[in-house]
Amino acid sequence: MFHNISQRFIATRQRTLKLAAPLSEADMQVQAEDFASPGKWHLAHTSWFFEEFILQTLGFKSLLAEPYRFLFNSYYDSVGQRQPQNRRGLISRPSLKEILDYRQEIDHALLTAIDAGLDPSLLKLVELGVHHEQQHQELFLTDILYNLSQNPLNPAYLTNKDLQSMQTNHAGDKTLQVFNGGLVNIGHDQDRFCFDNEMPMHQVFIAPYRLANDLVTNADWIDFIEDGGYQNPLLWLADGWKVAQQEQWQMPLYWQKNDQYFAYTLYGLQPLNLAAPVCHISFFEADAFARWAGKRLPTEAEWEFAASQQTVAESTSDNMSYVPQPRLNNTQGLQQLYGDVWQWTASPYVAYPGFKTSPGAVGEYNGKFMNGQYVLRGSSIATASHHARASYRNFFYPHQRWQFTGLRLAE
Amino acid sequence: MFHNISQRFIATRQRTLKLAAPLSEADMQVQAEDFASPGKWHLAHTSWFFEEFILQTLGFKSLLAEPYRFLFNSYYDSVGQRQPQNRRGLISRPSLKEILDYRQEIDHALLTAIDAGLDPSLLKLVELGVHHEQQHQELFLTDILYNLSQNPLNPAYLTNKDLQSMQTNHAGDKTLQVFNGGLVNIGHDQDRFCFDNEMPMHQVFIAPYRLANDLVTNADWIDFIEDGGYQNPLLWLADGWKVAQQEQWQMPLYWQKNDQYFAYTLYGLQPLNLAAPVCHISFFEADAFARWAGKRLPTEAEWEFAASQQTVAESTSDNMSYVPQPRLNNTQGLQQLYGDVWQWTASPYVAYPGFKTSPGAVGEYNGKFMNGQYVLRGSSIATASHHARASYRNFFYPHQRWQFTGLRLAE
Amino acid sequence: MFHNISQRFIATRQRTLKLAAPLSEADMQVQAEDFASPGKWHLAHTSWFFEEFILQTLGFKSLLAEPYRFLFNSYYDSVGQRQPQNRRGLISRPSLKEILDYRQEIDHALLTAIDAGLDPSLLKLVELGVHHEQQHQELFLTDILYNLSQNPLNPAYLTNKDLQSMQTNHAGDKTLQVFNGGLVNIGHDQDRFCFDNEMPMHQVFIAPYRLANDLVTNADWIDFIEDGGYQNPLLWLADGWKVAQQEQWQMPLYWQKNDQYFAYTLYGLQPLNLAAPVCHISFFEADAFARWAGKRLPTEAEWEFAASQQTVAESTSDNMSYVPQPRLNNTQGLQQLYGDVWQWTASPYVAYPGFKTSPGAVGEYNGKFMNGQYVLRGSSIATASHHARASYRNFFYPHQRWQFTGLRLAE
Amino acid sequence: MFHNISQRFIATRQRTLKLAAPLSEADMQVQAEDFASPGKWHLAHTSWFFEEFILQTLGFKSLLAEPYRFLFNSYYDSVGQRQPQNRRGLISRPSLKEILDYRQEIDHALLTAIDAGLDPSLLKLVELGVHHEQQHQELFLTDILYNLSQNPLNPAYLTNKDLQSMQTNHAGDKTLQVFNGGLVNIGHDQDRFCFDNEMPMHQVFIAPYRLANDLVTNADWIDFIEDGGYQNPLLWLADGWKVAQQEQWQMPLYWQKNDQYFAYTLYGLQPLNLAAPVCHISFFEADAFARWAGKRLPTEAEWEFAASQQTVAESTSDNMSYVPQPRLNNTQGLQQLYGDVWQWTASPYVAYPGFKTSPGAVGEYNGKFMNGQYVLRGSSIATASHHARASYRNFFYPHQRWQFTGLRLAE
Repeated sequence: MFHNISQRFIATRQRTLKLAAPLSEADMQVQAEDFASPGKWHLAHTSWFFEEFILQTLGFKSLLAEPYRFLFNSYYDSVGQRQPQNRRGLISRPSLKEILDYRQEIDHALLTAIDAGLDPSLLKLVELGVHHEQQHQELFLTDILYNLSQNPLNPAYLTNKDLQSMQTNHAGDKTLQVFNGGLVNIGHDQDRFCFDNEMPMHQVFIAPYRLANDLVTNADWIDFIEDGGYQNPLLWLADGWKVAQQEQWQMPLYWQKNDQYFAYTLYGLQPLNLAAPVCHISFFEADAFARWAGKRLPTEAEWEFAASQQTVAESTSDNMSYVPQPRLNNTQGLQQLYGDVWQWTASPYVAYPGFKTSPGAVGEYNGKFMNGQYVLRGSSIATASHHARASYRNFFYPHQRWQFTGLRLAE
Repeated sequence: MFHNISQRFIATRQRTLKLAAPLSEADMQVQAEDFASPGKWHLAHTSWFFEEFILQTLGFKSLLAEPYRFLFNSYYDSVGQRQPQNRRGLISRPSLKEILDYRQEIDHALLTAIDAGLDPSLLKLVELGVHHEQQHQELFLTDILYNLSQNPLNPAYLTNKDLQSMQTNHAGDKTLQVFNGGLVNIGHDQDRFCFDNEMPMHQVFIAPYRLANDLVTNADWIDFIEDGGYQNPLLWLADGWKVAQQEQWQMPLYWQKNDQYFAYTLYGLQPLNLAAPVCHISFFEADAFARWAGKRLPTEAEWEFAASQQTVAESTSDNMSYVPQPRLNNTQGLQQLYGDVWQWTASPYVAYPGFKTSPGAVGEYNGKFMNGQYVLRGSSIATASHHARASYRNFFYPHQRWQFTGLRLAE
Repeated sequence: MFHNISQRFIATRQRTLKLAAPLSEADMQVQAEDFASPGKWHLAHTSWFFEEFILQTLGFKSLLAEPYRFLFNSYYDSVGQRQPQNRRGLISRPSLKEILDYRQEIDHALLTAIDAGLDPSLLKLVELGVHHEQQHQELFLTDILYNLSQNPLNPAYLTNKDLQSMQTNHAGDKTLQVFNGGLVNIGHDQDRFCFDNEMPMHQVFIAPYRLANDLVTNADWIDFIEDGGYQNPLLWLADGWKVAQQEQWQMPLYWQKNDQYFAYTLYGLQPLNLAAPVCHISFFEADAFARWAGKRLPTEAEWEFAASQQTVAESTSDNMSYVPQPRLNNTQGLQQLYGDVWQWTASPYVAYPGFKTSPGAVGEYNGKFMNGQYVLRGSSIATASHHARASYRNFFYPHQRWQFTGLRLAE
Repeated sequence: MFHNISQRFIATRQRTLKLAAPLSEADMQVQAEDFASPGKWHLAHTSWFFEEFILQTLGFKSLLAEPYRFLFNSYYDSVGQRQPQNRRGLISRPSLKEILDYRQEIDHALLTAIDAGLDPSLLKLVELGVHHEQQHQELFLTDILYNLSQNPLNPAYLTNKDLQSMQTNHAGDKTLQVFNGGLVNIGHDQDRFCFDNEMPMHQVFIAPYRLANDLVTNADWIDFIEDGGYQNPLLWLADGWKVAQQEQWQMPLYWQKNDQYFAYTLYGLQPLNLAAPVCHISFFEADAFARWAGKRLPTEAEWEFAASQQTVAESTSDNMSYVPQPRLNNTQGLQQLYGDVWQWTASPYVAYPGFKTSPGAVGEYNGKFMNGQYVLRGSSIATASHHARASYRNFFYPHQRWQFTGLRLAE
């Protein structure tokens, strides 16, 4: 089970640095909103996680353990007081250089500890730390995108080399596939790593349903806009209509309309790819769109039941472009489950029957957030390789739009 | 099905006036928070409902139909623009006298119409209007309680005649009863009136569970307080902890502690009845209490499955006191399902599989609120007679406390 | 000096009741914004003032002295804790009837005390209390106007009998009169009653200046609007521009424009009288208008120096209409100093050199408000008879518009 | 008059770079509150000022003139749209390197233009630009102090070399000196550079007064604290008391009390120097202190009249420490007018009689801020050499504390 844990640790830690490479210290200092942590903070927090939950148990204490414990604890009340989330952008010191030194200090200590032999419970926490860092890699990208987006110069995270060639007009097959459901097992059986919120595996009754073979596209979304979708309260949940009015939503986050539609992306401002999946929409928008289309969002059980019947196509974010791409022309059946955009479901994020939090501070990892959020399934262009699986439960609040979020219809 | 609809209409309309009788026009003018509508507004809105959805269809137009349509529309976007909810307390004119005249005008018109013969779809809307008014009777009491509570003089809605004699020290039997669950039917089969959100009846799989025979009491809650329940973030959902800190929650709404505990009630400030069910707690507090007690909240399906195995005990709010009472000494088994306090469940308020909104503006009645709220089951001391049933789905936001809300434990 | 103090007390108390007569208890319960106290509160507070500062000294204690001391203390920290200003509208009890009874209780006690003989310092406080109540009479009218204005039905405080006949097209003479100024005395010499903030009389040097003979009219203001006055930031103080944008000011408070201009008044919505003085403008608007007109606002010293050279024309609010009227056709020279609209000056409200607060709690009457406000001079249609004088210093914040405020130009 | 303008320009521009030298790009990226602009922004804005108001007139256009005009315009509505003040910290690009390059580009262009010969009106604008940059040097230091202060690590701008040796226990002479006042001239006569708000020179009548020879010290302030100054509303203006309660003021900004008092400074957290002038207090606190001391704040005319009778002692900020120092032991008479802390006066910041704004966009420099602020006189440890003079009018809002502000008593 923990074969090659050192190699996976090293690979994950290196990928984080690779993601940070195109950015200046100033780029990684900015926190444009409470939810969009500075890049530098992610670099530090993911290191602190290994120190707090593993190395500290072994008696290791980094040079600046005390202030870092305060500065880089995200939300663990068991650990103690911490820098408020909305004030992470104020921490110009420690500098980026000091944070990178801290990462090396942790890397060295952890690899030494693994070599010396860790007991299974700590090895499990190393594995959790690796998956934790992969989650923060995705957040790093979404936060950087948001923070850079607030600059009126539309700066690019990466230069735009081959973006145009990737565009296509493939419109998807627009068909929905029938699934019979029944009394089925949902959740993870723990033969490999999973987060606690995917457990326990349990029985759910699902009535027969149909699920779209592909994702809703930007072209579909323009139809919704132009049919007055953002002006018709009868399509919206009341809470959604309220926030849409307050925030004056007229299109997805990052879109601009001049003579044509553009989207701000990690490559700067780009013409909208009509055939690509719509991205950066809230649950409220997804729900309104589905109602407008005469359909609905699938439940998470419906999504998982369908997805569990196929293998996870390899996520592509490590070697491809960081914008969602259209469905490939030569594919058939249920597509785009992983690697494009997270897919909002109709399911509020609550505990599975029999859910137990993990012992210790990591028990705060998932359980305490089970209120007011919706489950998203699949994975996105920002998700690390080997991170996605059919039982994975991502979750965000219904008004949030800065993640790589889209939708797949059901009925 | 609609036998005696006139009598039920008359009885319901009269009960509303009876509830308003102890109050002055000034008492019914106040709106202390956005959510606590003025008493006078409830009197007008419940009348407008009959005009808008029934009488208008028949060509009837009240004397002041146009301004009232704006002033007393609650949330129906299909109907048009309206007075914002948080500004209902500003409407000193029309006066209470004018609103009472309006009620008579509507009563006369509706009874005349019923006598002349209404087609079944309109008769169904009359029945909906009666149940709608019963819901507002409960809101009338909870809003009046809240609005009067903001007066530092602790004024009483009713004088306190026999309250002390009702107090008892019965502590309940504290046992949990086993239910086997399985693949069961949940929801209403429409043989009698129900709201759209109780439909359709559908299959749900429930694992075996245990449900408390009685409600959590004020004495239980004091144990929670004195064990530091309001100071320990590890007991709370993160969103709940945040609101508890912001609002500085230390005890249920309306409680005061001097040398002993008191609660502000519809009878003014009263010593706390330790054996009575705890009331005016939020979902967040109920959830934290359950975790502290090593238990959990039941799902709405678990509650309904258990409750559907017994008949609805007659609600007592029309002829008894308007404070929750302790469990009777001579009872056994599952008790206090109805007529004391609404019981928070662990279930977010979402659509049942296959849910369809009603056609027309009344389609906005329930469906658009299916976000961010939790289902409560049972009924309370403020619920009208003949209003409760096992499939009834009440719903409020998890931070709200001004309703008559308590909890029953499960595991 | 205190001849006839009983008669003046009685007359003032009666006028308050006369002002309240057209209103229901509900009308006097509403508080639409923090600054607009309920009518009922004014009735109670002006009575409490006599109890707190005079009767209490004599050993008198009203039936409900303790709660009323909390409820109806406006801002006297020396007196103790109090109901927050923004929550005055929540006090439905005591009822209007109880407040009117309280007024009678105070009236009787105070008149008895005067008859029995009061020492001079208390007689001075009675006189202060009378002037205090006159100030609240004006606030009563401005607050009622504001509170009723928030009702979309545009209800009228008084019925509109002779309003149309009062309208005229006299445009004023638009000339400015020269004053030489010099080293002059400003302030009150205390031969008769004045507030502490008018003292001490002191020397001020004023350079020669010119002051407009009449007030800026509604017709003038329309010119400002139509010349883009509300769209040009270069005319405005930075703080004023900010509030004008936030509040989306496009015209004075209470104005509406359909095919023509209307103003909401104490007589309901009325066509705008073009020749009448503009009213319900903030200092920021007055200042911007003056800059647009190539003029400026006078200082308070300039206003007082000019006004002190003429006698106070009898204020007309007791027997005339409660809307500002145009200048009379047959008048010459400096006009409209009193009885139409308060006139914003360029002078921040600060202490005169050598200013001393009165001893005791009434020392909080004026002095602690000497920050951030501007002085207004003259009086308005809502000011009581015999209340105005050349040295009177009224003061409001520069963004406030709900008083009867206009302007007179200088250069 | 403009002899050596190039040298003064060069010296000023170099001092700005010297002030920035101890800071990283991240340190200069942070904006902890709306009012505390990032260091990098100051470097750019002071350069843009020369381009916008001088070089552009000459046909010069920098490489990135268009985006910089939007990004680095502070508040000039005449110039056009701009980055909102509270979002200056989001601009991670242009980078610090690009801003430094921009400074060089502007320096070169301006020096070339001066060498080629500028007409007098442009030379006056160069001089204005130099004084403008000196003002921003002070803001740079106060903003950096504030932005670093929000880091819980208490980072130091400069290392603390000789601070302890500077401390002393000299308590000042505590005497007040008599000035006779009379009808005097106040304001600047324009024989040398001054800002428009210092003009025109005009006559003011001042009654005889007394002015303290030295500044209120930290030891004095501790007496105020320990006598309950922050707990007694009767010492405070009402607006001041409100903000003091909301912000929970218990001591000056940057003070901490453990077993003894400390102050956060540009040298990090330091023990409080009791004999040094109190610093980082608001007008409201200064006013409350003066009332507590049985004194008052001087008017700006009183301050200027006294100060104009002596020459400006050379400001010391360029070669000494950046914390206020105690009065020197061997001095007599009126001391500490300049170079320690700005001194709050009782005078609201308004236009002098006859004030005219400058033509063009620089007319927005001072005039539009003449509302709601108070005048401060003197200069501080952060003020550039040759920048102070007796007629200088600095101004801030009465609640602001992040400047180097203290007080001198009068009576």
